[in-house]
Amino acid sequence: MSRRRSTGVTIRAIAAEAGVSIATVSRVLNGHVYVADETRRIVQRAVERLGAKPSAPSRSVQGAVYVRCPYVLTDYFGTIVSSVAETLDLHGRRLILSAGDAALRVDALPGLPDDPEIAGAVLILPPESGEQLRALQARNFPFVVVDPRVSSEDIASVSASHFAGARSLTAHLIELGHRRIGVIGGPQEWLASDSRIVGHAAALATAGLLPSPELLVRNVEPVTDWGYDSALRLLDLPDPPTAIVAFNDKSAVGALRAAHERGLRVPEDLSITGFDDVYLSLSTLPMLTTVRQPLEEMGRMAVTLLMRLLDGHTIESLHVELATHLIVRDSTGPAPNRT
Amino acid sequence: MSRRRSTGVTIRAIAAEAGVSIATVSRVLNGHVYVADETRRIVQRAVERLGAKPSAPSRSVQGAVYVRCPYVLTDYFGTIVSSVAETLDLHGRRLILSAGDAALRVDALPGLPDDPEIAGAVLILPPESGEQLRALQARNFPFVVVDPRVSSEDIASVSASHFAGARSLTAHLIELGHRRIGVIGGPQEWLASDSRIVGHAAALATAGLLPSPELLVRNVEPVTDWGYDSALRLLDLPDPPTAIVAFNDKSAVGALRAAHERGLRVPEDLSITGFDDVYLSLSTLPMLTTVRQPLEEMGRMAVTLLMRLLDGHTIESLHVELATHLIVRDSTGPAPNRT
Repeated sequence: MSRRRSTGVTIRAIAAEAGVSIATVSRVLNGHVYVADETRRIVQRAVERLGAKPSAPSRSVQGAVYVRCPYVLTDYFGTIVSSVAETLDLHGRRLILSAGDAALRVDALPGLPDDPEIAGAVLILPPESGEQLRALQARNFPFVVVDPRVSSEDIASVSASHFAGARSLTAHLIELGHRRIGVIGGPQEWLASDSRIVGHAAALATAGLLPSPELLVRNVEPVTDWGYDSALRLLDLPDPPTAIVAFNDKSAVGALRAAHERGLRVPEDLSITGFDDVYLSLSTLPMLTTVRQPLEEMGRMAVTLLMRLLDGHTIESLHVELATHLIVRDSTGPAPNRT
Repeated sequence: MSRRRSTGVTIRAIAAEAGVSIATVSRVLNGHVYVADETRRIVQRAVERLGAKPSAPSRSVQGAVYVRCPYVLTDYFGTIVSSVAETLDLHGRRLILSAGDAALRVDALPGLPDDPEIAGAVLILPPESGEQLRALQARNFPFVVVDPRVSSEDIASVSASHFAGARSLTAHLIELGHRRIGVIGGPQEWLASDSRIVGHAAALATAGLLPSPELLVRNVEPVTDWGYDSALRLLDLPDPPTAIVAFNDKSAVGALRAAHERGLRVPEDLSITGFDDVYLSLSTLPMLTTVRQPLEEMGRMAVTLLMRLLDGHTIESLHVELATHLIVRDSTGPAPNRT
């Protein structure tokens, strides 16, 4: 945590000499208005005693990074947060965590710019509207969004290529001879849901097919029980699909259960795909064909972007979309011959 | 975050009046030695101006809580950390997170007592030795251990009842007629591993059985692949078990895969049990019979104990062991008749 400044004297050493906190030293050196004159003098004298020369003001020194992930940290969110934690540690930055379902009810964002301890934030799948995020930005508070729900042109964000991932999944199924492909979509008005449905349609179009409205079921919450219910609805259609593309691995697990209940073998009678490639996708029998989201890299990239914002660098591309990869396992196979 | 003191003036108001950080106010009011005299005077004058009367020194005001969980936050660790986060938020405490596998390599504990921003810590399955933890304690640094690896008499800790949980699992299998029960044990010299093996033996003893050494395989790391390898070793014994008790749900998933490969139906030919009751145990076919660890309650209880330590309360029982519950699902059934 003792990052050296250009003069060779650490913030920590100045803090120890002045008898104040590291955050206070940081605020003084950065010319923050929220410091009493006397405190400023104490710190400046400590700087002189140590022969250090304070560098130009910048918000970047030593402030903590607030990480908001208002969900239970499961394999998906937990992997991203772990990666953010590891990367912030490499940068000598503290991580202040707000997580768990209860955090959803906390109106956390408006107060962030006023908090002298916090230099910036990483917001993971934030439930806040684009307007609220832009309000934060209007106050020059540096933050990066991972997996944004809505698209905002001016806001730095990191996501995975949902479109390309979904397209490659459906192309894989078409190659296996499937023509009626059911889709368990994600929540309405999520960027990820929409992009994946477009990716699916693009793959169909390439094969000269149009999507059938009755083959699309929307998930309200992308969890196993919804996947199960949605899959049953698809399987009970008069002309049921021979393959189901689920929104994520959790929904796919529900679809596997539905197939089992209907006496369908996977993949002989029905192919099922997931999305995410979390631990779960390796734990089912058969293991899931899915799309790998680079969760760790998303965490690392979010921190990298934030560090650049904190250092006042210009970011040329505000939106980083990381590549996804099709992972073919055992839950997909040739379309059954139906007579 | 603006917890009121008995005088009705908040720390935050004093900090705003003095123009210093909340942490600085907290240190001054708590009589911390690590404060310059001039800073102390600034804060004291602000207190006088606001008509507040500082209460007796205590370490408890406003300091952040350091949470160390040097593993990737999966369903198990992520659930505990999420619960700790939610509970700290209720107490108006900041959570400073150290997580991810890379954190294993960080020697984080010795510096904690010197850090003025940190009031206490929650350490989850800490890899540090009992000696290191006692060294921390010798410096009067308040901390609570969740899921300790080793037993330490004087250290506040929260864990689940491994013994009772394991005993109830094996008793359930014995009731189903199983007599040869394989055990996929956890890592050596973990309190959890040892307690569960003792619980297993206790259940056997009640039925007049002694454990067979060849039926115990130790996991080095309790993950799916180890569960798979361990289960194959048990199934390849000349007289293989009719049931396998796995260390956790992840190992049990590996055991399910091993059974599938050997052409064994679960539970008709082989019963398999997990431990933890994480999301995974509901995602397999058949769903796992397992033991529920109260992960959320472990997180809440850890914070409660820590708050009491910070408030200087006496804790009568330093070790809190929370009850576990047997969850019977579909992976266990009557012992097969062998001829």
